[in-house]
Amino acid sequence: MSRPFGKVVVVGSGLIGASLAGRLKRDAAAARVTGVGRSEANLETAVSRGLIDDYATDPAQALSGADVAVLSAPVGACIEYLGRPEIFGPDTVITDAASVKAPLVAAAAASGLSDRFVGAHPMAGGTEVGAAAADPDLFAERTVVICREAASEKACGKIEALWSATGAGIVRLTAGEHDATVARTSHLPQFAVFALGAALAGRSGEDTFRALTGAGLRDTTRLAASDAAMWQSIAEANRDALLEALEEFGRELDAVTKAVREGDADALADAIGRSQAFRKDIDS
Amino acid sequence: MSRPFGKVVVVGSGLIGASLAGRLKRDAAAARVTGVGRSEANLETAVSRGLIDDYATDPAQALSGADVAVLSAPVGACIEYLGRPEIFGPDTVITDAASVKAPLVAAAAASGLSDRFVGAHPMAGGTEVGAAAADPDLFAERTVVICREAASEKACGKIEALWSATGAGIVRLTAGEHDATVARTSHLPQFAVFALGAALAGRSGEDTFRALTGAGLRDTTRLAASDAAMWQSIAEANRDALLEALEEFGRELDAVTKAVREGDADALADAIGRSQAFRKDIDS
Repeated sequence: MSRPFGKVVVVGSGLIGASLAGRLKRDAAAARVTGVGRSEANLETAVSRGLIDDYATDPAQALSGADVAVLSAPVGACIEYLGRPEIFGPDTVITDAASVKAPLVAAAAASGLSDRFVGAHPMAGGTEVGAAAADPDLFAERTVVICREAASEKACGKIEALWSATGAGIVRLTAGEHDATVARTSHLPQFAVFALGAALAGRSGEDTFRALTGAGLRDTTRLAASDAAMWQSIAEANRDALLEALEEFGRELDAVTKAVREGDADALADAIGRSQAFRKDIDS
Repeated sequence: MSRPFGKVVVVGSGLIGASLAGRLKRDAAAARVTGVGRSEANLETAVSRGLIDDYATDPAQALSGADVAVLSAPVGACIEYLGRPEIFGPDTVITDAASVKAPLVAAAAASGLSDRFVGAHPMAGGTEVGAAAADPDLFAERTVVICREAASEKACGKIEALWSATGAGIVRLTAGEHDATVARTSHLPQFAVFALGAALAGRSGEDTFRALTGAGLRDTTRLAASDAAMWQSIAEANRDALLEALEEFGRELDAVTKAVREGDADALADAIGRSQAFRKDIDS
């Protein structure tokens, strides 16, 4: 039986890359699945868990003869790989799993890779990291955004088939639509929570503070411990859209603060009413 | 066998009041447990679930001969009850379950009730409301803040025994300490989430927005649908402490926004580092 994919090379073998690799392996969907990473211990874990067939620490060596390259490194590293077109073989179709899309599309264009770069963003993740936490079912029933942009129909077909093979549903967006939307659905809440955590850090070590901390604060600030390097990289890559979202939020916070200060029940009711409507939207 | 409490009257038979009543009933800790409320349907539910013995819609009538009165109504209503000292019998010790303490202490003092008002704030709750959602184990292993203030030793002993009987641990604070702390552990996150929900409401109805909404945004904004009347009342009752907390948060948000705008990695790292430290504090 012929397999849908030839050699698939996952560049970055963390939670996302190793989960994708493991799904392809489990379904015998690729001729070979090769992992690339800097940590040999992590790559050994991926081999021993049967998530990849083999690995290399040099991406150029691993990518030789690849049918598909999946860049599943932090967004800044993905941009750097796309700036080195010589590491990709001429017949390799390229996708990624980064949280920001427009700078990758631009980097691929600058390197002459536009016809075979199809950006992707799987809406899945977890607080654990590395191949040890990988799960072949991580993407099942989730959404993967695909940004076709200037890629060929053939490249788009292959990459959509790859992500569909994980059990995810495909949503096609332009890179600009994607980045503007995740600035609000993902990047704004993350940076709002960083600011909230920073504001509370001066008192959170006090016994009284901890005694009065309940489920509301815990849920609201679950993201407060997120990885600094990853989010610095996202803030840089999606600066304009994130800034617009942060400024919108800043204006709402100022309005709420003013309403509390002035005892303006109508203004407060307006903000709370819109907040409740927002929640109804995302729960529906 | 003599029971530790005589007639206990729960004024406000929602989730908190009916849960406390149900615990006293289950343990046969009170001679009688009477519910007071405006909704007869809710009070009938409380009777049929065995959470109270009987009920009345007139607090003055119900409170006649009470050993303990528990004000478990919204904070504004609690303040109003404490402004009507004539409804409490001369031997009745009074406690409450509101989220703000100083205005209740002040109202009790203005009514000459200081020696027998012992404020309490059980750190428990839920998204469901009413006697139908009540749970006699709601307070087990949770914290109840007790504000003794000017109450007599006898009154304090009775009220601490009452809340201890729910299985909760007691933490003693002054009303001022309590209000300043919950302004940060509870009221600030709530109003920050209202502002975040309001900022996102303009786009949250779009299919693209919903497709890209994941667990991070859902957890961060769980409080976005909270009850407007309850939180308006809390904002009014704890205005000064909440304002201070909102202004501290506003300054951190401005600093994070500036760091994103200017690509200031050091400033961003500082805020993220403190946010991570905050999370470590509340998880430890």
